[in-house]
Amino acid sequence: MENNKFEVTPYEVTGKVDYERLEKQFGIMPIDDALVERIEKLAGASNFMLRRRIFFAHRDLDWLLDEYEKGNKFYVYTGIAPSNQMTIAQLIPFTFAKWLQDRLDVEVYIQIPDEEKALARNIDFDTAHALGYAAALDIAALGFDSKKTKIFLDTEYAGVLYKQAVRVAKHITFSMVKDAFGFTNENNIGSIFYTSMQAVPAFLKSVEEGHNVPCLIPLGVDQDVHFRLSRDALAKLGYYKPAIIHSKFLPGLSGAPKMSAHNASDTIYLSDTPEVIEKKVMSALTGQQATAELQRKYGGDPEKCVVCQYYKFFFEPDDAKLKAIFDGERNGTLLAGEHKKDLAKRIIEFVENHNRMKEKIKDRLDDFMVRG
Amino acid sequence: MENNKFEVTPYEVTGKVDYERLEKQFGIMPIDDALVERIEKLAGASNFMLRRRIFFAHRDLDWLLDEYEKGNKFYVYTGIAPSNQMTIAQLIPFTFAKWLQDRLDVEVYIQIPDEEKALARNIDFDTAHALGYAAALDIAALGFDSKKTKIFLDTEYAGVLYKQAVRVAKHITFSMVKDAFGFTNENNIGSIFYTSMQAVPAFLKSVEEGHNVPCLIPLGVDQDVHFRLSRDALAKLGYYKPAIIHSKFLPGLSGAPKMSAHNASDTIYLSDTPEVIEKKVMSALTGQQATAELQRKYGGDPEKCVVCQYYKFFFEPDDAKLKAIFDGERNGTLLAGEHKKDLAKRIIEFVENHNRMKEKIKDRLDDFMVRG
Repeated sequence: MENNKFEVTPYEVTGKVDYERLEKQFGIMPIDDALVERIEKLAGASNFMLRRRIFFAHRDLDWLLDEYEKGNKFYVYTGIAPSNQMTIAQLIPFTFAKWLQDRLDVEVYIQIPDEEKALARNIDFDTAHALGYAAALDIAALGFDSKKTKIFLDTEYAGVLYKQAVRVAKHITFSMVKDAFGFTNENNIGSIFYTSMQAVPAFLKSVEEGHNVPCLIPLGVDQDVHFRLSRDALAKLGYYKPAIIHSKFLPGLSGAPKMSAHNASDTIYLSDTPEVIEKKVMSALTGQQATAELQRKYGGDPEKCVVCQYYKFFFEPDDAKLKAIFDGERNGTLLAGEHKKDLAKRIIEFVENHNRMKEKIKDRLDDFMVRG
Repeated sequence: MENNKFEVTPYEVTGKVDYERLEKQFGIMPIDDALVERIEKLAGASNFMLRRRIFFAHRDLDWLLDEYEKGNKFYVYTGIAPSNQMTIAQLIPFTFAKWLQDRLDVEVYIQIPDEEKALARNIDFDTAHALGYAAALDIAALGFDSKKTKIFLDTEYAGVLYKQAVRVAKHITFSMVKDAFGFTNENNIGSIFYTSMQAVPAFLKSVEEGHNVPCLIPLGVDQDVHFRLSRDALAKLGYYKPAIIHSKFLPGLSGAPKMSAHNASDTIYLSDTPEVIEKKVMSALTGQQATAELQRKYGGDPEKCVVCQYYKFFFEPDDAKLKAIFDGERNGTLLAGEHKKDLAKRIIEFVENHNRMKEKIKDRLDDFMVRG
C-alpha cells in the first residue's frame, strides 16, 4: 500500500505517481490509440511523445480535433514559471508545442509568469524577471516560428493580461483556490490571485479576434489544477473551455518522481557545462544490479532506470533504438558505465546544439516578445 | 449606548460615526490647530475643509511637512472606484487635492480602479470602465493642471501597476485582508488581491524617480484600512510610508451617515439635472422642528441638518456666511423651505458650472490620462 501513496500539486510531486489513478482523481481522459492515430493523420507525421504516452491524458482533445477538421483552427498555449535556469524536463511541453506548430501550422502563445515563483518562493522579483528572459531565449531557440509565436512575461504584459484576469477572478473564490492548491489563510494575496493570470492566455486569442478560437494547452499534469479552476469561469465569460494535453514527469537523476529546478545535483540545466552534465549523468540512478557481474546475470529494470527514461522522454525518438537500449538494460548486456556515458554524450550534444541556436537567435529574441 | 454603535468599512458605513473613537480605533491622529496653521503658512492661504475639520485626522502629516520644509516635495495621490455617476460627496478629496496642487505646486496622481467595484459588486467590467472615464472627466473638470496631474484607470495602466502590486502582495496574507475587510473564504480572488493595486500609486513616483518621494493621500476615512494594510509592506519594500489625511463623510439627503452612490434618492450626482437636484434637495432632512411655528419658537439643530452640513462640507466656504446659516437654523429664523431652496440653487449653480468645465475640457481629457 505504501507504494501507492503519491501526491501531485504544482508545488510538489511526491511518491511513485500512478498516472491511471491520477486520471480518475483529476477527471482527465487517457489518450488512446485512436486519438493518437487521429492526430498523426492530421499532422501527417508520428510523434514519439504521443506514441509513448509521455503525453498520456487530455481534456476535450476530441472536440478540438473536430473543430480543426471543420476548419476552426486552434492555437497552442503553454508556459513556464521560472524559478531557476531551465531544466531539460521543462522542455517537454515546448518541444511538443513546436511539433504542433510545424505540423499543423498553429500559433503558439507562451506565458512566462515571472511573478509566480517570486510570490510563491524565496526568490526576488528582479531575479525571477531575469530568469524569465533566460527562459524566453531557451524557448525561442527550440526553433519556433517568430511570425506565429508570442512570448510574454507577465510583468511586461500585464497591460493586456490584468484586464482579462480580473474577469476570471470574479468567478473564483478563495474557497476554491484553497481547496485546489491546499492554500491556507497565510498564503499571500498575490499567490491567491495568480491562477487567474494563468487562465488568460487560454482565451486571449478569442479576445483579440473578437470571436471564439479553440485553444490547446500542453502542460505537465501537475498544472492541470489551474484549469480545473478556471475552465468553468471561462465558460461563464462566454469563451471555449481550453483543451488540455497532459505530460508525465521526467524523473530526477536520483529517481525523484519529478525533476526539480531547485535540486541542482538531481537536475540537468540547459546552462550546465559538458563537464557538469557528464558528472551528473554518471551519478544517475539506473535500474541495474549492484555489480556488473550481477547485472550480466540478472539484468535490470528499465522502468526504474533514469537513464532509460531520459532516452524515452527526450533523447531517443527512434523506437527501434530505444527498444535496443531497454533490452540491453533488461537482459544485462548494457552495463551502467557505458549506458550513462552514451546518455551524457547525447545530452551534451543536445545542449551544445541548443547553445548554438541561442547564440544565433539572441539578437532576434524581440521578434518573439510581446509587451503591453 | 445604542447611539454609540457605528461601523466604518470601505463597503458600508452605518450608525452615527464618532470620529474621535474612530481615531483611536484606526490609530490615526487628530488634526490640531497647530497643524492647520502650519499647512496654511506653507500654502499661503486658509482652507475651509481644514479649518472645519472636514479633514479631521491624519497619519504622518508632520513628517510630510518636515520633508516639504527641507525641500523634499511630496506628491498627492487620491482616487475613486466608480460604481455609478460621481456624487458631490466624492468630490471632497479631489477638491482638496486641487487646492494642494494650486497652493503647493505639487503633482497629483489619480487612480480610478475600474476593476474594484466590478469585482466587489454586481456591476460588469465594461460598465465600470465607462463609469471610470466619466469620473476622469468629472475630476479633470475641477481644474487640475494637466502638466502636473496623471489620471489612470487600473485596466489601462496595469502594465505599470501590476508589476509593483505583486511586490506589495507578497507581504500581505489572506488573514490580514480577512481581518481588515471582513472578507470570508467566499470572496473572489480579484477582490482579495485588489488592495495591493490600491497601494501602488502611494510609491509609484518613487519607482519612476528612482528615489523616495513623499506621498500624501487625501481620502475618506473609510479607505484608511487599505493603507493600514499596505503601509508596512511599502516600508518593507524600502519606500516611505505615505502620509494620509482623512475626511469625514458627507451625509446622505435623508441623513444617512454617508452619501452612497447607490441610493439615487439619497444622493446628488454631478449628472443630475437642475430639476432633479431641486426635487432631491427639497426632500432633504433638516434639523428643524415639525412645523414652521415650532421652528420659529424652538429653533433647530444644524448638526442634524443635512442642508447645513452640505454648506459646511462644500457649498459655503465663507465662515461668516456659514455661521449666519447655522445661526438661522438654530434660532428659528431660517425656515426649511427657504433653507433648502437656497442650497438647491447653490448646488445647481455648481453643477452647471461643472458641466461647462466638462464641456470645455472633454477634448483635452487625454492630456491627463496615462496608459501603459
